[in-house]
Amino acid sequence: MNNPEIPSALIIEQAHERIKNYIHRTPVLSSEILNDIFKTEIYFKCENFQKVGAFKSRGAVNAVMSLNENELEFGVCTHSSGNHAQALARAAQLRNIKAYIVMPETAPKVKIAAVKQYGGEITFCKPTLAAREETIKRIIEITNAIEIHPYNNVKIIAGQATAAKELIEDHKALDIIMTPVGGGGLLSGTALAVKYFSPNTKVIAGEPDKANDAFRSYYKNRLIPSINPNTIADGLLTSLGSITFPIILNHVDQIVTASESAIIEAMKLVWDHMKIIIEPSSAVPLATILENKFESQNKKIGIIISGGNVDLAKLPWL
Amino acid sequence: MNNPEIPSALIIEQAHERIKNYIHRTPVLSSEILNDIFKTEIYFKCENFQKVGAFKSRGAVNAVMSLNENELEFGVCTHSSGNHAQALARAAQLRNIKAYIVMPETAPKVKIAAVKQYGGEITFCKPTLAAREETIKRIIEITNAIEIHPYNNVKIIAGQATAAKELIEDHKALDIIMTPVGGGGLLSGTALAVKYFSPNTKVIAGEPDKANDAFRSYYKNRLIPSINPNTIADGLLTSLGSITFPIILNHVDQIVTASESAIIEAMKLVWDHMKIIIEPSSAVPLATILENKFESQNKKIGIIISGGNVDLAKLPWL
Repeated sequence: MNNPEIPSALIIEQAHERIKNYIHRTPVLSSEILNDIFKTEIYFKCENFQKVGAFKSRGAVNAVMSLNENELEFGVCTHSSGNHAQALARAAQLRNIKAYIVMPETAPKVKIAAVKQYGGEITFCKPTLAAREETIKRIIEITNAIEIHPYNNVKIIAGQATAAKELIEDHKALDIIMTPVGGGGLLSGTALAVKYFSPNTKVIAGEPDKANDAFRSYYKNRLIPSINPNTIADGLLTSLGSITFPIILNHVDQIVTASESAIIEAMKLVWDHMKIIIEPSSAVPLATILENKFESQNKKIGIIISGGNVDLAKLPWL
Repeated sequence: MNNPEIPSALIIEQAHERIKNYIHRTPVLSSEILNDIFKTEIYFKCENFQKVGAFKSRGAVNAVMSLNENELEFGVCTHSSGNHAQALARAAQLRNIKAYIVMPETAPKVKIAAVKQYGGEITFCKPTLAAREETIKRIIEITNAIEIHPYNNVKIIAGQATAAKELIEDHKALDIIMTPVGGGGLLSGTALAVKYFSPNTKVIAGEPDKANDAFRSYYKNRLIPSINPNTIADGLLTSLGSITFPIILNHVDQIVTASESAIIEAMKLVWDHMKIIIEPSSAVPLATILENKFESQNKKIGIIISGGNVDLAKLPWL
């Protein structure tokens, strides 16, 4: 019950209090046309409108704002080529501390620029997990900075849980809440928030067929990392962690997967009919509905749109 | 004072009452990043989230809902290749009457499909103004349908005025409200709403350099139609009308123009930083700020985003 690796309802409520002045309470949008197409009611929690364009701001702000005076001194660090890097740099800037970010030298220029814009100090490394881990280890030795892992971190999970908490507050009696799953920070936080604040709601995760480690781990009942995942949903290449996996195993009702073509089709449906920009990772839950992977008709389904950071010069349908 | 061609405050209020159950009260969004870039506060009234993806729903619903029993009998008709065609077809469907839409045979397939989806009966014609006018005349002779002009119509102007009315209700004390200008339905309605409901706010219109008939007409003090306008802002190819022009002349404070490259850059800035899809026409006011066409710094500026109907396979920056 008091496992410190599982955020309690109180911990999530405190996280929400802690971060709420530094994040957006994002809107929940619906589309009658999409509801007609899918024959169900879908409520999109728009974290694409969140600070830095992704839910990652929630966890990063919670983690950094939780640090005490002593912990602040040497700054924070992480390795990430994606939204967590920007979110951590921004959170550190809010507290006026250093953020050391390890990024693969292949990271998109736009993401490098965004981290720099928030004052992050970037160290580049070869684009392998081994190089990333070695580089961050060295940075910690030199700087004494505190590592804030992108998902396998209780403060991060508690922060990400606040998106589902808000969705539940705004739309009661949802039958299902869905998120995409990569490392499992958003999914594990969502599963806990739903358990505490809307226990009759089911939690279903969507994962790309081509990066289906969570699906396999969940049904095999043991952690099986992805090997060379390769999907358009570039936010979901990571594998579950030692903290996120047990929460997901115990509190998620179902994990379903989607093909690449369904992910692209779902993404384009949202752009076309809702006029909002969502990244491919965010389209994965809707893609599983498109492929009839579970009983979705005539329900009230909340979907957490994880982010909107897309390279507008490289759209997947072109 | 009682010119029936100039909607009064009461007429606009009645229009708002009449349409409000059939349209969205669209949100007003801001972006700190854009405010930093432009060194001013900008409030975007998001009619891209409106029914059929454009403000045109307001005028079309007002016009159709204003028809009496006798007028309903033979349906409505218009010529339009754009958002007004969809909006009128939808409004007619709401009252279960016929909508005859004249479209150029070159109209994009997606727009043709959208009109059909709302039950509109399409008649194709050659893509010239003469062919359009001749075709609609013939349709009126055959069907007795009532023509609902896309902008040169008092009911349409009163309906379009409700977007600015909502913006003023949601954000008081704006220094400036901007709209793009094509035929002038949105601009003339906005100018009247501002005059009645926020008289200290200035109204500034943005127009493409390459379709600058409103700019020339306004400063020459006489109606000068566009000849072969050619701009990425495809919603702004039309010229001012006999009803919209005098309202604009009397109640708009300034008309400024933008280059094609600024329109594309402004459009991409909104997509990138706000994660919303706006059509090129909607980016014209911001483009004029980008080009410093008037005193815009340290102000509170409302911009009516006219619509979000974009062919996602043909983005102008690709």
